[in-house]
Amino acid sequence: MPFKNLNELVSPNKSKIVLLIMDGLGDIPPAPGGKTPLEAAHTPNMDRLAAEGALGQTIPIARGITPGSGPAHMALFGVDPVAHEVGRGVLEAFGVGMTVRRGEVAARGNFCTVDQQGVITDRRAGRIASEQAQPLVERFNQIKLPGVTTEVRHVKEYRFAVVMRGEGLSPDLDETDPQKTGVKPLEVVAKNPAAQHTADLFNQWIHKAWELLSDQEKANCLTLRGFATDPGLPQYAEMYGLRAAAIAVYPMYRGVAQLVGMDVIQFEGESPSDEFAALKRVWNDYDFFFVHIKKTDSYGEDGNYDGKMHIIEGVDQALPELLALEPDVLMITGDHSTPVKLKSHSWHPVPFLLWAPASVRIDDQTAFGETNCANGGLGTFNSLEAMPLAMAHALRLAKFGA
Amino acid sequence: MPFKNLNELVSPNKSKIVLLIMDGLGDIPPAPGGKTPLEAAHTPNMDRLAAEGALGQTIPIARGITPGSGPAHMALFGVDPVAHEVGRGVLEAFGVGMTVRRGEVAARGNFCTVDQQGVITDRRAGRIASEQAQPLVERFNQIKLPGVTTEVRHVKEYRFAVVMRGEGLSPDLDETDPQKTGVKPLEVVAKNPAAQHTADLFNQWIHKAWELLSDQEKANCLTLRGFATDPGLPQYAEMYGLRAAAIAVYPMYRGVAQLVGMDVIQFEGESPSDEFAALKRVWNDYDFFFVHIKKTDSYGEDGNYDGKMHIIEGVDQALPELLALEPDVLMITGDHSTPVKLKSHSWHPVPFLLWAPASVRIDDQTAFGETNCANGGLGTFNSLEAMPLAMAHALRLAKFGA
Repeated sequence: MPFKNLNELVSPNKSKIVLLIMDGLGDIPPAPGGKTPLEAAHTPNMDRLAAEGALGQTIPIARGITPGSGPAHMALFGVDPVAHEVGRGVLEAFGVGMTVRRGEVAARGNFCTVDQQGVITDRRAGRIASEQAQPLVERFNQIKLPGVTTEVRHVKEYRFAVVMRGEGLSPDLDETDPQKTGVKPLEVVAKNPAAQHTADLFNQWIHKAWELLSDQEKANCLTLRGFATDPGLPQYAEMYGLRAAAIAVYPMYRGVAQLVGMDVIQFEGESPSDEFAALKRVWNDYDFFFVHIKKTDSYGEDGNYDGKMHIIEGVDQALPELLALEPDVLMITGDHSTPVKLKSHSWHPVPFLLWAPASVRIDDQTAFGETNCANGGLGTFNSLEAMPLAMAHALRLAKFGA
Repeated sequence: MPFKNLNELVSPNKSKIVLLIMDGLGDIPPAPGGKTPLEAAHTPNMDRLAAEGALGQTIPIARGITPGSGPAHMALFGVDPVAHEVGRGVLEAFGVGMTVRRGEVAARGNFCTVDQQGVITDRRAGRIASEQAQPLVERFNQIKLPGVTTEVRHVKEYRFAVVMRGEGLSPDLDETDPQKTGVKPLEVVAKNPAAQHTADLFNQWIHKAWELLSDQEKANCLTLRGFATDPGLPQYAEMYGLRAAAIAVYPMYRGVAQLVGMDVIQFEGESPSDEFAALKRVWNDYDFFFVHIKKTDSYGEDGNYDGKMHIIEGVDQALPELLALEPDVLMITGDHSTPVKLKSHSWHPVPFLLWAPASVRIDDQTAFGETNCANGGLGTFNSLEAMPLAMAHALRLAKFGA
């Protein structure tokens, strides 16, 4: 397990650390004797880094546990995702580009179908298509409530997210989804007296939203779940003494980065080159850079072997632009595995490459792939230990004890 | 993590266990394709033991954490150095050959420079040279206090250690170093009423010591830090049912061994052969033998690749003298890594060799080196697990559960 009081050892210097995450990078061979997309990909740059660095494999949460992207990223950032749960509402909101600050309350919303007595007949409104749901969600932004503002965005199909902002709000609310059909949606109930005002506001909001759906057949009602606020996670500046920048195309990853105190860098485009160009632009302003590549995961979830392989090759081709900046420590890894064969996130260990010319113990592995990583000199370790390793290799940690 | 109630499984027999620690043994290749000093050294004996035994690599504290020698040895002895912190004063005192027993109070002293108003102008007395500081420290041994004795020894440059012995002493004292210049040194303040008497005595001692420095320009004052007593660590006899002997040239390592209940064996000389001769002399009197080789670390800190390599070769040449005693379990490892390239302790895993002809699972590694160890059958494990492994291979542990 990682060292508890790492921040007491932090000893700042001018080194630059880059954490390049290819989402869902890890995979499994489609058949005995086969190669994973990472192993099959032509990656001369990553292979060179592997030869000059050290490999290992990470366990995102615990053996056998398949993580969501939120917890998997938190672990790589050094924040225990089991000890620090980030509410669903907050993740959902960040995922569609809304921010949730301390004291603001986010919730995840589901469209549902009710009959004339208001009893739920379908908890997911017949899995209404996104094109139909999107304009319905837009209607909710007309809703006015006293003393607070609300922002609503569509997520996918029957799902949306809502954020309420104002004074004296509390996320200590029970959700309104009864988790079964044949009963009415529940009222928002406060878990304690301090949350009563917020419960009243959300009940008013639900009532007005329901009215706006009165012309609908399928999506004629809604439930709210996962009320939550910014969980107040440990911040990069405090944990590591690092000024940290996040470079990611997708909002959800920017969101998790913000929650641990990273600055989100704005940029145009969405290719690896675009991301590395953004990195270059802010290179002198930060010590730590999180760069996120999404599409490895997307192709994994689609079951598209070649697609995933080509994304990896694209990152490799752009890599010299990053290397030209001469980082002191470069980690290339995934947040979790998304095997093409499984078409979903999985629990498999994740390939991890550590390159740090001044301080790394070079191992005997000369290519970047799952089997190489299982045989690498860093061994198998929990994702929570990635940041301590990065800090050590950047020579940013003092000795423990005399 | 190691098994918590190991002592409940202890089942004594007549086996002999040797833990041979080459301080700072672990290293990193100076360049891609290069070898570490251990890998480059000609070590036919260790290589044979590797072929007949099993290899692994240890993490001294946690990944990325660089340990001091004290914590690193404690971990190998099976005492968690994070849970059991040994006060600075105690380590410093043991480091210069003074013992600190339960109830005695040790502190680390710094010479400093004060102006005519007694205000600190330099917290380290211009980093006064050891030759100048040594005789000043000697002066302090003239100091007499009522009911207690004090012993003072020079450490290095501006640093010294003091031990106070007597009845009713307490280490619960605030240090006198204000951690900045422009203010006067602090008084020793008791953290609780029971420590008031000790605070008074140390304040008297400081006053008398200060007078003895009145003719000095640079080192004309002092501060005391890290007040501590023997922390009452778990003892080898209780933890493992082992009679344990420590064979070490340097006082600090004898000190840590004493703190866990080992007997320190006196001997002449400081070569590996001298140490193995001492081991042979007491072979029948003990079950466990800790043998410490210092100079691998010293050459690592000096950045002297050949020096470190030759020390390892010297140990290998002397090894048959140890093997002639026919130990049942022999572990050869380091307490931490001290890479020549970094000239300092580091966080890198440490090569670990386990030889136990009656019980070891022989792996496929046939030489002793960092890469061999990363690929060894024991895997990567925390140093705290070394003693349970040793006990098991000595067949000194009963089965857990039916």
